[in-house]
Amino acid sequence: MRIPGDVVDRVLDSWPIARLTTLGPEGAPQPVPIVFVHHGGRIWSPVDAKPKRSAELGRIRNVESDPRVSLLLDHYDANWSRLWWVRIDGRARVVRPSGPDDPEVARVVEALRGKCPPYTTVPVLLEPSRLIAIDPGGVTTWCAGPEALRAI
Amino acid sequence: MRIPGDVVDRVLDSWPIARLTTLGPEGAPQPVPIVFVHHGGRIWSPVDAKPKRSAELGRIRNVESDPRVSLLLDHYDANWSRLWWVRIDGRARVVRPSGPDDPEVARVVEALRGKCPPYTTVPVLLEPSRLIAIDPGGVTTWCAGPEALRAI
Repeated sequence: MRIPGDVVDRVLDSWPIARLTTLGPEGAPQPVPIVFVHHGGRIWSPVDAKPKRSAELGRIRNVESDPRVSLLLDHYDANWSRLWWVRIDGRARVVRPSGPDDPEVARVVEALRGKCPPYTTVPVLLEPSRLIAIDPGGVTTWCAGPEALRAI
Repeated sequence: MRIPGDVVDRVLDSWPIARLTTLGPEGAPQPVPIVFVHHGGRIWSPVDAKPKRSAELGRIRNVESDPRVSLLLDHYDANWSRLWWVRIDGRARVVRPSGPDDPEVARVVEALRGKCPPYTTVPVLLEPSRLIAIDPGGVTTWCAGPEALRAI
């Protein structure tokens, strides 16, 4: 069963977590969990100040060499009648703000702070500031049935 | 902070859900949530009788044309000190049991029933029977810190 567009929009606006898959150097898939905000028709995910595996993030390098990404939002439930997922295929780019007053990035940072309570203490942007901006392309959805749809 | 190998094994043995990314026809990533079992050193995921978008699953077609896959297991928590993820890169193949008595598949089906309570009512294998078997290659892990590690 498909998920109606207005419900997909609601999920994009409110779901706390997504899994972003970028493509590695040889074209192999590299998924990673991300926090994000839906703002101005794009999906934005910052390189924030959560602890990192390394200073140069693989997802940044990957997006710069191949912009094709896919974002998965889904819900797991021990009751399988409530399962659903939304996949957004899109093209990503790395945004490096022109300065602390970059107006578009300032609005995105504000939206991220509004959406994610931990950003009251965790800095949204780790220096040097970088964000991934995704232009959504195809949307693919699935849900187990009416009970899943009601639970979204 | 990395996650020790014995903890990764525990996650693989018990975590109910993973996100599997296969590569589509043009090499674009296609992630999807899956249930799975860790059995005999491989990760197994059946084409089960949950409702499907279409009879011919994209993931099956994808694996048959490019075996490179990546599996992400992770935990989201509103307390970001408890975040962790485990990524398994590997090679997948589609297994079509030789018959209802195929001994390896029978053991996998038994393991799936033991792990996932919904399989007491949902058939594990939708006809024609197919499973995806993943041979794990590289393992990449991350956790936010000691609190995350204790919570796994």
